[in-house]
Amino acid sequence: MIAPPSVGTAANPTFVPYALTCLVLCLNLLILWITSGAMRARSGVAINPEDGARYGAPVRELDPPVVARFLRAHRNAEATIYPFLLLGLVYVLGGGGTRVGVPIFAAFTFARLTHSIVYLRGLQPWRTLAFAASLLAICALIAAVVHILLRA
Amino acid sequence: MIAPPSVGTAANPTFVPYALTCLVLCLNLLILWITSGAMRARSGVAINPEDGARYGAPVRELDPPVVARFLRAHRNAEATIYPFLLLGLVYVLGGGGTRVGVPIFAAFTFARLTHSIVYLRGLQPWRTLAFAASLLAICALIAAVVHILLRA
Amino acid sequence: MIAPPSVGTAANPTFVPYALTCLVLCLNLLILWITSGAMRARSGVAINPEDGARYGAPVRELDPPVVARFLRAHRNAEATIYPFLLLGLVYVLGGGGTRVGVPIFAAFTFARLTHSIVYLRGLQPWRTLAFAASLLAICALIAAVVHILLRA
Repeated sequence: MIAPPSVGTAANPTFVPYALTCLVLCLNLLILWITSGAMRARSGVAINPEDGARYGAPVRELDPPVVARFLRAHRNAEATIYPFLLLGLVYVLGGGGTRVGVPIFAAFTFARLTHSIVYLRGLQPWRTLAFAASLLAICALIAAVVHILLRA
Repeated sequence: MIAPPSVGTAANPTFVPYALTCLVLCLNLLILWITSGAMRARSGVAINPEDGARYGAPVRELDPPVVARFLRAHRNAEATIYPFLLLGLVYVLGGGGTRVGVPIFAAFTFARLTHSIVYLRGLQPWRTLAFAASLLAICALIAAVVHILLRA
Repeated sequence: MIAPPSVGTAANPTFVPYALTCLVLCLNLLILWITSGAMRARSGVAINPEDGARYGAPVRELDPPVVARFLRAHRNAEATIYPFLLLGLVYVLGGGGTRVGVPIFAAFTFARLTHSIVYLRGLQPWRTLAFAASLLAICALIAAVVHILLRA
């Protein structure tokens, strides 16, 4: 028998901040991805032969620099956001509280949005600083999850 | 103390449709990934020097076109499926119902399976249409999650 | 109204093993990603023009081989770990037990850590064997999830 999640249980106050974090970070990822496709279309270069034939664009193996930059920003975002959201869900489902969780969720979200913006604009050392800040937030989340598991 | 998820709560009817969606989409991702590796082996080109030495295959920095196409289809699938499944879980855990959830899950799954098939066959404008349909389903899911959060 | 997850329900003994699995696999992913960036910095080659200007490094479109190897290991890890963790969560939330779940979680984690190590060292046929073992663990998890859904 399925023992399904969530309905009818008492309130878990960390769920709503988690849901908001998940929403903003998924939008961050989706906007980077969709924009990379739009930039490729505008660049006049195709990666797929069927697109080249359709739009009369030359077909290349590698994306033009502006598209490649969007894709690097997207891949960096993926590499940190998915682990964060999975661990964040473990934190929420494990009964983690808002006093520790909300500052971590907020710091990570702020660091990631900043990272995307400064990566696309090519601004250093801000890109490295934003990436480091997102890693610090992940370390804090890992510590919070370990703390929950040790109490178990 | 851990407050663990799911056991002993009343039935959450949206969980089973979500679980099925997650199953089909993860299979979609895994099949694209595994097939890309099988196609590379069959193409007689190696990316890793140790594979080139083992199979007597020339080592290249870039994959042959047929493998690169599978990997592009896979990356496109990753870029939309993971955000969808994470937001879908938020929808389920937030108590979202089946009347809104099931059509969104079904539409996204159908759009993604279609996208993989037409991407691998190089069929336009179907690839762009399938991608657009999957984005519409994500937008509907985001709206449904926002609706849940506003009621919170 | 939000019906939030997890608080106040009876104990779900599969949650803690899942949480540990998620922790170890996310660390696996993050370490591969962070190390790839550190190796690029040490290699004296830049992918972003702003990094080349800052460190006086030549700018290339493709990463040096050692960095590309870390990124391939990372991408392979992503392609299997995210589906596993999402399906694993479905298993836990669906009330899956520890007797089936813990061996699957342990086997997958062991296979993935082995895969990362032997990929970075270029050891064949161990890389292929570790990848195959991780796929077997995913197949077992899929069967376990299907079993839960059929009982629903």
